[in-house]
Amino acid sequence: MTWTPDVDPARTESRAHPLAAPSGPPRWLVAIDVGGSGSRLVATTVPSGARPDAAHPPVAPGDAPHRTELTGRSVAIGPDGSDVADVVRDLCASFVAATTGSHDAPPVVAAAAVGATGLATLVPDPATVHTALRTTLAADRTAVAADALTAHLGALGGRAGAVVAVGTGAIALGTDLRRVWRRTDGWGHLLGDLGSASWIGAHGLRAALAAHDGRATGGSRPLLAAAQARFGPVPTWPVQLYTRPDRAQVLGSFTPDVAAAAAAGDPASVQILTEAGRHLAETLAAALVPGLPPLAAATGGVLAAGPSLTGALARRFAALRPDAELVPSAGTPLDGALHLARLLTEGTATGGAAASTAPAAPLVAHAPWLSLGDEPPAPAPSTTTPITGDPT
Amino acid sequence: MTWTPDVDPARTESRAHPLAAPSGPPRWLVAIDVGGSGSRLVATTVPSGARPDAAHPPVAPGDAPHRTELTGRSVAIGPDGSDVADVVRDLCASFVAATTGSHDAPPVVAAAAVGATGLATLVPDPATVHTALRTTLAADRTAVAADALTAHLGALGGRAGAVVAVGTGAIALGTDLRRVWRRTDGWGHLLGDLGSASWIGAHGLRAALAAHDGRATGGSRPLLAAAQARFGPVPTWPVQLYTRPDRAQVLGSFTPDVAAAAAAGDPASVQILTEAGRHLAETLAAALVPGLPPLAAATGGVLAAGPSLTGALARRFAALRPDAELVPSAGTPLDGALHLARLLTEGTATGGAAASTAPAAPLVAHAPWLSLGDEPPAPAPSTTTPITGDPT
Repeated sequence: MTWTPDVDPARTESRAHPLAAPSGPPRWLVAIDVGGSGSRLVATTVPSGARPDAAHPPVAPGDAPHRTELTGRSVAIGPDGSDVADVVRDLCASFVAATTGSHDAPPVVAAAAVGATGLATLVPDPATVHTALRTTLAADRTAVAADALTAHLGALGGRAGAVVAVGTGAIALGTDLRRVWRRTDGWGHLLGDLGSASWIGAHGLRAALAAHDGRATGGSRPLLAAAQARFGPVPTWPVQLYTRPDRAQVLGSFTPDVAAAAAAGDPASVQILTEAGRHLAETLAAALVPGLPPLAAATGGVLAAGPSLTGALARRFAALRPDAELVPSAGTPLDGALHLARLLTEGTATGGAAASTAPAAPLVAHAPWLSLGDEPPAPAPSTTTPITGDPT
Repeated sequence: MTWTPDVDPARTESRAHPLAAPSGPPRWLVAIDVGGSGSRLVATTVPSGARPDAAHPPVAPGDAPHRTELTGRSVAIGPDGSDVADVVRDLCASFVAATTGSHDAPPVVAAAAVGATGLATLVPDPATVHTALRTTLAADRTAVAADALTAHLGALGGRAGAVVAVGTGAIALGTDLRRVWRRTDGWGHLLGDLGSASWIGAHGLRAALAAHDGRATGGSRPLLAAAQARFGPVPTWPVQLYTRPDRAQVLGSFTPDVAAAAAAGDPASVQILTEAGRHLAETLAAALVPGLPPLAAATGGVLAAGPSLTGALARRFAALRPDAELVPSAGTPLDGALHLARLLTEGTATGGAAASTAPAAPLVAHAPWLSLGDEPPAPAPSTTTPITGDPT
């Protein structure tokens, strides 16, 4: 299951029978990933092999799953924090409209899960996102997670360990989904996000300006040429950047140019990607705290910036944690959100009809990483690793 | 003449006779410095020794100069750029109100000059600032300069050379006020301003977060403690910072803590200040282009951050330009703005009654650094060093 980034925003894809199953309407799992550079929804009907619960009998075994994918806008950060709930509401409404068109009745949603950027810091109350899911989808069960958690679930497929997610920002989470929750970085483009697209782009633009200014060190003429091609004359750059609300995305938009210059051998660009990889390794290693198995992964589109970055990441991580295994990412944050939605149907801690036969441990809410519907966001249990205190 | 930062916002200080001169009302020079952390106005009556012009006879020789100082708010950057003109209008109105109260008639302003932050990049049209000066002060002659120029005039007292001004941001200008105009850095906290207060503060907060996250390198526990004392619990920092319009100032507000930690021996803080000094030296050296005498200075409150910064600046500059002299700054940007106002009364290129006996060369407008009233902002003469092209 891979994400198709250039999917038609309203495409509904039916892999087998386009009609509803004879035994009743199909039941959907809905997963949403809300990021700094866009949002995505994927919905799939519950496959025959999924464990049903008492309230929702399985669809007929002969039915192949339907699958729907939609794209939406990115979040905006304003004086009240981010508008994740609005983005989720719009995507869900589009899903309902598209699916109702196919089936002549609103879709029946068994579970819906959202992974959202900035959730750990900039959304004061995940309840607004739960409300958006319930009012648009009438979902029985809902989960709202930080994108660091859905990235973790996607990359390690539900296994315990540490995952660094590298997009416009960069954040790592070390967790077993139960007792250990250790976050590192994810502090945004001014305070951290070291090695992320915004970090790489900002350093690339600084190298371009160093060449423009004629500084003694750090300049890159290839990056200056690339930045002028992308942003126009140098004196216009500040007003283009500082008057926009999405500065981190603007900075990150230069990262492909840094990757291209590095691929062409520009020393300054290679150096920037190498430092980015080292930063990401330190972020990842710091999240792999005692109590977790020595398992780690990195995920995110920025890893495609080239071997300068990924090589430095692997070397530095091996130096910091020679005992640990750095495995390839098994899937995307959107895959992780779908995994989370599936876990909701296998038994939760929300008092719903948990399947007694489910071998998986029930999901446990843990603020600010995971909140579950039908209950207020739970405070962090006292036995878990505090995220606000100092590391030991 | 030094700036007193904690002056009463409406204090009018009369150094000698509080009444108008018997030969007529006193004539004022008004100077304004608009910065990222506040704005200041100083006005002084034209001293007896100043060269008068035909339209404005000198005050009686026996009159000692009056002096008035006011403080105002800092600029805000919005979708339309900075609001320098509004800040200037408010300060001038306060000056007129205070001075009218003392003299029972509006002050007669011979010349007014403004140095403003971001003028080179974020104010599309300095004419709005000229209009603010004329409508509030009825000034005969006005000048609107980038703060880099007033810093230069203040630091070198009108001599040719290069000056780096270090406040919330950092910018250097190499100029002889006639043919050579070379700017380096000043690109704002996301693209540059290397070594400035916002740069130091951001790096200090990153060191604090590195300690908080338990990263392998770069952490500082003293800075973590200082940042928690200043900003509260770590998880609240992003929402405090990213929802504010004055992010650079918030970052810069941590610089005194970095300076204090460095003074107490914190290695990470010493390293940050040392790198800041090196960056400033490279910015300054890059502005000292051929055609200028080998004379340079650094100015701004951030230089008080300690010997780690100033020592690194001096050493790195000496290594880059062993032929050049790095002199102590002779005055502040506000002094430079007053110098500029005085130059306006000594003869300008605006078609006014220039004193034929003035030994000083007439002021020449040069966008975006200096624009003069009574004429549209002049395009850069083709014989000067372009600021938008590549350095050679």
